This record gives sequence, structure tokens and C-alpha cells, in this order.
Amino acid sequence: MIQNILFNEEAVVEDYKTVRNKAESYNNLIEQPTMKLLLPDLKNKSVLDMGCGFGINCIDFLRRGAVKVTGIDISEKMLDVAKAENSDVNIKYIKLGMERINELDSKFDFVYSSLAIHYIADFEKLIKDIYSKLNDNGILLFSQCHPITTAPMEGATWIKDEQGVKISSPVSHYLENGRRILNWKDMQYPIYHRSFSFIINALVENGFTIMKIVEPAPTNQALEIVPGMYDEIHRPTSIIIKAQKV
Amino acid sequence: MIQNILFNEEAVVEDYKTVRNKAESYNNLIEQPTMKLLLPDLKNKSVLDMGCGFGINCIDFLRRGAVKVTGIDISEKMLDVAKAENSDVNIKYIKLGMERINELDSKFDFVYSSLAIHYIADFEKLIKDIYSKLNDNGILLFSQCHPITTAPMEGATWIKDEQGVKISSPVSHYLENGRRILNWKDMQYPIYHRSFSFIINALVENGFTIMKIVEPAPTNQALEIVPGMYDEIHRPTSIIIKAQKV
Repeated sequence: MIQNILFNEEAVVEDYKTVRNKAESYNNLIEQPTMKLLLPDLKNKSVLDMGCGFGINCIDFLRRGAVKVTGIDISEKMLDVAKAENSDVNIKYIKLGMERINELDSKFDFVYSSLAIHYIADFEKLIKDIYSKLNDNGILLFSQCHPITTAPMEGATWIKDEQGVKISSPVSHYLENGRRILNWKDMQYPIYHRSFSFIINALVENGFTIMKIVEPAPTNQALEIVPGMYDEIHRPTSIIIKAQKV
Repeated sequence: MIQNILFNEEAVVEDYKTVRNKAESYNNLIEQPTMKLLLPDLKNKSVLDMGCGFGINCIDFLRRGAVKVTGIDISEKMLDVAKAENSDVNIKYIKLGMERINELDSKFDFVYSSLAIHYIADFEKLIKDIYSKLNDNGILLFSQCHPITTAPMEGATWIKDEQGVKISSPVSHYLENGRRILNWKDMQYPIYHRSFSFIINALVENGFTIMKIVEPAPTNQALEIVPGMYDEIHRPTSIIIKAQKV
């Protein structure tokens, strides 16, 4: 697994940490605030965070009333940081890819995943696994790269006007699900493009009901801090889906 | 209502009829076959077809076992054709915009609409109206212009390679819902762009459960007849949504 190797390299982990900690990053200004608004009531709930990284959300789930949190990640280096900075007696950090959650011995009331599911090749299997790991009426909340953004074979690009302002983004191969390359900083990560309908149908056909979908738009607050976030209007970076096991 | 006036002009109706009757049109090769696959069991059901045009589907619904069909359209000229060519004692054709279905005095088991809902400014009101006009567990099936296609302010365009082959389509203003212009043949029609999430959330928040979403891809059969339909891979023309009143 390429992303495993990449995220384990010391330098990449440090780099990733720096970006994640930057107040003006996309995650901190747009994706994470939206995800927080969509969290269900976590009082007395058990939570699985798939791709927990440094464990920042695991700690937050406890603060919101969760009684037990399991954070899984494939990066041992990231989990080392999580254990050092965000440990708690009610959090268990496990080195495990989300392709293998069926190996976990407990079930959960809430499964969460922030910007990680697009790394998984077999989405339908993952959704089936999540379903079997959720208690009745359990909720799944996840964000992933937006299908418009993942569609182009060579990665998303921008068309700019004479002043260099981004005015549109070419979409292609939208209906051709499969492997793509995500350019992030100086590196390339393999990700999987899936059309909107494929994602929704995989959820519905495997026992989930769609509760809410958000394609986060730049808030005025985000635009004040980073005017360039206006580009999100043209082509959102992420999509967030909240679904319930029925 | 501009589209009302347009569709009432004799020439436009004739033009529209010619295109609709062409075996190799997008509707006949891609949208309509997909819609047919998604039809629920219509045996003994009552049906409302919103934007019924020439009534071709109204007659088909009867053949599939429906006991009562109401076809509404804003074009009197189109309804004249429907009454002449597709009449039946169990079909009622009514000149009525779908913004006014609450004026109908009966309820339905199935509400259908092919490539017309994008003309309606107030989507949420329409969904509420459909909900109130459906019997319990009733089904809504509709197709509309795909959000990627309706997003750009100046209408969808293509980027071509040196050989003139369409390779991508610029998307912009995707998250800015509102009025757009659809270029169809030599005319311009006002339509309304709505993001994917806006459409799904309007359905879910107003009592519908999502059953299936289809972004129709070009079939091999369609490609044999019209190789240019391959462009649908890059940017689908329509999206089809099937939802149930719960």
C-alpha cells in the first residue's frame, strides 16, 4: 500500500502535521467545521475513527460525551503522535487499515472518517464492513475528495483568466470510476474516483439511509482569512455524507 | 414564464417533436431507456406525469398496468398533440405548470418527470408539493440536467484536442445555485442550477428516502449508433433520481 509507506516516512508525517496545524488550511477552515456541525449526539456512544491520524478528533469525541473511542490508522508514526499527544484511558489506538475493520472485536454507534475513504479501492466492501460494525441505527459520517475533483485522469487542474484568477476547472472521465493520482504538495498519492451516484447507491443498497450531504462552500469567515478559498465555489474540494444504518 | 411561450410556438413544438422522435437522440438512446429500467411496478397505480409533452409516457404507463394517468404540461400545443396521438379514457391531459400541482384534486402512487424539473425555480416547494400529492409509500422518479452540466454561468462548453475531440468540460460556479441559460438548438431556455447536495437534501428533509441515483453512461449500443455519445463519460447530460415517500 503506497499511502502506508508514504505516511510512514518521518518527513511526510512532520509535513502533514504542519499543514494540519495551520489555522488557514482547507481542513481547518472548511472541512472540519462542517464535519463538527454534522456530528450526532455522542453522549454514551462508542465511536470508531477510521484514519484517525494524530487522534485530534478521538479526543474531541470523548469531550462530547463518547464513552469509548477506537482510532485506527495505517501510519505507525501518526499513531505514535496520537498516543503521545491525545491519549486517554477510553481511547484505543490501533494500527489497522480500514479495509480490515472486520477484525475489530466490538461494534460501534458511530463511525467517522475524515478525508481518508478515497484511498480505499473497494468502496462497496468497506460500506458492507461498516454496516456490520455499526449497532442498529448507528451513524456513519465521512468526508472524501469531491467526485468533480477526483474525476480527471491526470488530477484536477484550473483554467485561469489573464490576471491569473481561477475561473473554471476541466472535468473529464467523471463516469469512469477507478484509480487516480492526487497531487498533494510535492507528492502523488493514489486515490479512487467514484461518481456521486456510485457512492450513494453503494450506501443505499447496503442498508443505509441518506441523512444529509454537504458540499462545503467557503464561509465568509474562511474567505476573510484565505480569499483564495473562493475557488471552492467553482469546484468543491470535498464532499461530506451522513448516513444511518436502518 | 419564458419556456411556456417558447414551447407554445408552433415551430418550436414541431422542432421538438422531430428531435424527440429521432432514434439517435440523447433522450431516446440514454435518458429514456434508463428511466424505463427504474419504473416501479405500475399495476393498478395512479400516475402523475409532470411535463408530459406529447403524452408518449402516459400511454406507456397504462400499458404497464396503471389504472389512471394524469399528464400535465404548460404547452397547449404539445397537449393538442398528446390528445390527438396518445389519448385514452384513463388519461387526463391538463394544461398546468408543475408549480401548481397542489391544485389537482387527487393523489397519486407515482409521480414521474422527464427532463423538466430544471425549469422550476423553487425546487423545495415543488418537492413539498409532490410529497403532499403522493400516497403513502408513493414513488417519485425524475430526470433533470446534470449539475455538472448546469453549473457554468454561460452554459456548458467543451475543451477539444487538436483533432477536435472533446476531452474535458470546464466546471465553474458549481456551488452557486440559481438561474442559468440552457442552449438547445438555436434557442436559449432559462433553467435552474442546483448542486447535487441541495437536491438530495431537499428530498430527504421533506420526507423522501433516496432509493437510487443514476448518472446515465453511454451504453455500447448507444455508442454504436452515435459514437459521439462517448462524451457522456466526461460530463453526463442528465441525472436520474428515484425516491420514496416514507
